[in-house]
Amino acid sequence: MIKITLPDGAVREYENGTTALGVAKSISEGLARKVLAAEINGQVWDATRPIQQDASLKLLTWNDTEGKNTFWHSSAHLMAEAVEALFPGVKFWVGPPVENGFYYDMDLGDRKMSEEDLLALEKKMNELAKKNSDYIRKEIPKAEALQYFTEKGDEYKLDLLSNLSDGEITFYTQGEFTDLCRGPHIPNTGFIKAIKLMSIAGAYWKGDEKNKMLTRVYGVTYPSQKELDEYLLMLEEAKKRDHRKLGKELGIYTMDDQVGPGLILWMPNGTVIIEELEKLAKETELQAGYKRVVTPHIAKESMYLTSGHLPYYADSMFPPMEMDGEKYYLKAMNCPHHHKIYDAEPKSYKDLPYRLAEYGTCYRYEQSGELFGLMRVRCLHMNDAHIYCTKEQFAQEFRAVNDMYLKYFKIFGIEKYVMRLSLHDPEKLGQKYVNEPELWNETEELVRNVLVETGVPFVEVKGEGAFYGPKIDVQIWSAIGREFTLATNQVDFAQSRSFKLSFTNQQNEPEVPLIIHRAPLGTHERFIGFLLEHYAGKFPLWLAPVQVKVLPISDKFIDYAKTVSDTLKKADIRCEVDDRNEKIGKKIRDTELMRVPYMLVVGEKEMNEGKVAVRRQGKGDMGVKSVEEFLQDAVSEIKERRAD
Amino acid sequence: MIKITLPDGAVREYENGTTALGVAKSISEGLARKVLAAEINGQVWDATRPIQQDASLKLLTWNDTEGKNTFWHSSAHLMAEAVEALFPGVKFWVGPPVENGFYYDMDLGDRKMSEEDLLALEKKMNELAKKNSDYIRKEIPKAEALQYFTEKGDEYKLDLLSNLSDGEITFYTQGEFTDLCRGPHIPNTGFIKAIKLMSIAGAYWKGDEKNKMLTRVYGVTYPSQKELDEYLLMLEEAKKRDHRKLGKELGIYTMDDQVGPGLILWMPNGTVIIEELEKLAKETELQAGYKRVVTPHIAKESMYLTSGHLPYYADSMFPPMEMDGEKYYLKAMNCPHHHKIYDAEPKSYKDLPYRLAEYGTCYRYEQSGELFGLMRVRCLHMNDAHIYCTKEQFAQEFRAVNDMYLKYFKIFGIEKYVMRLSLHDPEKLGQKYVNEPELWNETEELVRNVLVETGVPFVEVKGEGAFYGPKIDVQIWSAIGREFTLATNQVDFAQSRSFKLSFTNQQNEPEVPLIIHRAPLGTHERFIGFLLEHYAGKFPLWLAPVQVKVLPISDKFIDYAKTVSDTLKKADIRCEVDDRNEKIGKKIRDTELMRVPYMLVVGEKEMNEGKVAVRRQGKGDMGVKSVEEFLQDAVSEIKERRAD
Repeated sequence: MIKITLPDGAVREYENGTTALGVAKSISEGLARKVLAAEINGQVWDATRPIQQDASLKLLTWNDTEGKNTFWHSSAHLMAEAVEALFPGVKFWVGPPVENGFYYDMDLGDRKMSEEDLLALEKKMNELAKKNSDYIRKEIPKAEALQYFTEKGDEYKLDLLSNLSDGEITFYTQGEFTDLCRGPHIPNTGFIKAIKLMSIAGAYWKGDEKNKMLTRVYGVTYPSQKELDEYLLMLEEAKKRDHRKLGKELGIYTMDDQVGPGLILWMPNGTVIIEELEKLAKETELQAGYKRVVTPHIAKESMYLTSGHLPYYADSMFPPMEMDGEKYYLKAMNCPHHHKIYDAEPKSYKDLPYRLAEYGTCYRYEQSGELFGLMRVRCLHMNDAHIYCTKEQFAQEFRAVNDMYLKYFKIFGIEKYVMRLSLHDPEKLGQKYVNEPELWNETEELVRNVLVETGVPFVEVKGEGAFYGPKIDVQIWSAIGREFTLATNQVDFAQSRSFKLSFTNQQNEPEVPLIIHRAPLGTHERFIGFLLEHYAGKFPLWLAPVQVKVLPISDKFIDYAKTVSDTLKKADIRCEVDDRNEKIGKKIRDTELMRVPYMLVVGEKEMNEGKVAVRRQGKGDMGVKSVEEFLQDAVSEIKERRAD
Repeated sequence: MIKITLPDGAVREYENGTTALGVAKSISEGLARKVLAAEINGQVWDATRPIQQDASLKLLTWNDTEGKNTFWHSSAHLMAEAVEALFPGVKFWVGPPVENGFYYDMDLGDRKMSEEDLLALEKKMNELAKKNSDYIRKEIPKAEALQYFTEKGDEYKLDLLSNLSDGEITFYTQGEFTDLCRGPHIPNTGFIKAIKLMSIAGAYWKGDEKNKMLTRVYGVTYPSQKELDEYLLMLEEAKKRDHRKLGKELGIYTMDDQVGPGLILWMPNGTVIIEELEKLAKETELQAGYKRVVTPHIAKESMYLTSGHLPYYADSMFPPMEMDGEKYYLKAMNCPHHHKIYDAEPKSYKDLPYRLAEYGTCYRYEQSGELFGLMRVRCLHMNDAHIYCTKEQFAQEFRAVNDMYLKYFKIFGIEKYVMRLSLHDPEKLGQKYVNEPELWNETEELVRNVLVETGVPFVEVKGEGAFYGPKIDVQIWSAIGREFTLATNQVDFAQSRSFKLSFTNQQNEPEVPLIIHRAPLGTHERFIGFLLEHYAGKFPLWLAPVQVKVLPISDKFIDYAKTVSDTLKKADIRCEVDDRNEKIGKKIRDTELMRVPYMLVVGEKEMNEGKVAVRRQGKGDMGVKSVEEFLQDAVSEIKERRAD
């Protein structure tokens, strides 16, 4: 008998040679039907692989990233089986899971793959999946593996084999297809209920353009047709909501070759959104007792050597400028500058918590191929702040930060979010992690408690904390269900030491403060990119670049329209008049296209009665109101930052 | 007879050999007493030098920079005469006028000059001045000049002579002192009525540290004791108001070695001022129809080649960063980035004037020796904007910009200011100036008209315009009478062409817009430096980092003080409670030191009646008020941005 420890700490006994699937079945048949793989002593295994000794075990399902990856990796094998059936003699390179699905690179010889072939392949895959073929793992001596692929005439797999040693080579077989593969895989092909092959692309072998161009086929699979349909619908919707497309249409941002890639020029409409977000942040942070600062965008090399960003982080920083015999770097983060401000005046415990906030502009070097609209840029404006506090103050400060996140989620209608709490690995203290076991345990416990008490959904990940403390990555989902990484939230007990920061404690002794790094609204770039998709460009009134457009039915009413507009402008409403000589239908259509929240149509009747006919973006006619009544409603909608 | 043309265009006839002083006397004896020198055909001459041909003539008095410089240069000669009397055998190097006074570098041999010597020298100078000795100009053949200084054994003057040719050598003599000098000088020593020798310093001969260290004596003189006294008083006051001293005391800004020289870290109190200034600018610019943008701080070399900043302005820019085979530069100005935003969408005449505003951060390389507090820095936040308009719109736009300056002067109590209008030189069109004679004349005339019509004090300077159009430098004086250059205001008809900017005019043809560059509040750095001196750190309520401090008389009243503070904070008043266990006298003194505008003292009586005892910074007791009454008063003082 062996002892299996489950994630909740429960220990159960099983026959030697049991499998994760067996364990799952012993718990419930329903559970077993969902098990895709398992984490055995921290390693991801086939759910069907015999366990020969005491182990900790975590069952992996579709809800676990590793479960999903296994599912997609097995789907790649299934696709390969179908390709081999339809394109005999095909040779395969690698077929990994990716963010949304999987691909396989293949050498089709002289043949080309067409869109029609994809449909035929899908059909074949469905046929093969229904056979419920098991994925069978087999350990193979290197000589035997070499012989197999030599006979098959597959130079690609032989190339892979050349880097492997005896004892670490495994084959996986399902149905008619055998592949050299480290695994793991799902139990059988029957799990794959819904299949969509997405696209065909070219990919140089090993990514080197001197090599042969292989054919790459992308696909995605789901455990049910419903989930696949939802995903495809989301993709279609995401395309319409593409922040690059909307960003251009709505005059949000632009880029320019002479300025450089990844460097956003925020146009007037985008700047309105930036300023509204900053206003929200400033109000929120003022209430929460933050002080604001402004720091330069550069510093000497020496500061980044102190902070430890150099040389370790150098690849992500811009290259230096050499001046007066010194190297200056564009800042990739604001912390060191804030530490200098903390340190500019002596601090006592009475000054703590000391919270410094800045919408700081950082520069990070991303490979030009990695740049993507507002999502991956080289210049980013971060909703940054650093909280310097005592150990005693930490829990309360951390809770306040967490509350700020929740407040923002509510304002922006972000309903789905997960905090990913990354912890240290006790075995790597002093190497990967600052050697402060007590502080690690204390702060991790404090952070965990805050998350539990506030009922925030979170997952824990061991061994992924920052060097200097536990870290929380915040994942959010847009209205159409797409996932975004919003921000990171970090506890830091190392930088205070590097920068020799201290405060005089109640015993009149110098003490090192803890630091919380936080950026709930992330960066303007990523967050506005997210919001464009989230709202499909239809910003709530308070964020809309143009809030109200007055549409005179004909030129006769332009003066009245301007009077209305002036009245609204005095109340700080962003209002414009459409004084073009166009039909009212066209004016309405154009204003809808620009996603202006309110249209006020004015003609004879409205003018005579001092009223406006109100139309709400996407909702149509809202009836006739007096200017004053509309104004009051709009002002309160803006002030409360209502969703609509 | 010769013809003399006066600045107003009048032509008068005089005997050949008349002097500027003679011309002045022919106008009025009172005027003649003020004449220090004269501009003859564009060159500055002695007022006593005979004029031998027709000439244009401008009399120079103390109110002209060149008049003042001549006065101080003559004062340096007077000082030299005194030094020679008290330190026989002294040798002189050079003695030019400087911004506020003059100096002379001298070799005293083994002797040292002391503070007491300065007093003796002053006495001697006064004695010599009263002799009314004429400054006598004499043209000298080189051989004779060499003989004179060889006999005198003065190797310094011989060194100067070695670079001069026959025919351009003049001596000036007053009283017992003769100097090799190009001149010009004032008529006689009697003009110098008030003398103060300021300091003694060391200065290497020719500024080269390998050379001998000479003694440099600084002095300042005035045409009246009253003016000198005022100047010395201003200096003393300026010392107390030194922005570097106040900046540190009030927690406005700091600098750090690891960040780098000239790179300001704005501390929380300074950031409050920055944000209030930006709020003022945003409000003002919104009302004036500006749109705001946000641009990155870097761009590729190519953009600055297009703008013409490279290579001509390279010395004032930071060195490049080399990345992806491109050179990137920190921006030294915001215009090119704004031009790119203008150009991102096609424009028609209906879109103009198109006004783009940004508090843009620029980086300029200044020699580290030139850096000075907030006044000369390497990173500057500029109240920048660019107005793109048609020729027809130009006058109105320029007037609006001018009005904005005047509005700001009023808000900040800037009572003395001068606009310095720099024009082109028709002879240098196509070389130093864009070859658009009509546009030059038109825009210069338009700018001049606006200045005349609005009654703004201004001076015109020919041949100092920017390459691309006329320019206005704005000089302002602080409350204690010190002069600051606030900002530049420029008309630009060249950059639109370089960047190929255009709009479709009413004839449906492409046309090039005019651009106005403007920055009425200058840079945060310089303007806040100015404000610190101007207000002596006693900011008006709306700008004060902490606006109100509540001072409980004893711990018993801390809770009440906090209630008061919370009430004020809800109305967005920046309020703090002094909850230290200190005597009320000390609390008041400390709060005065931090220049907090209002102190609210609360004790038993105030608590029971829901009142506060109000003290105004610098004014003392203002009586007891209800919290609500104080709140209303303070809110309206802030809203109106009242001076006090």
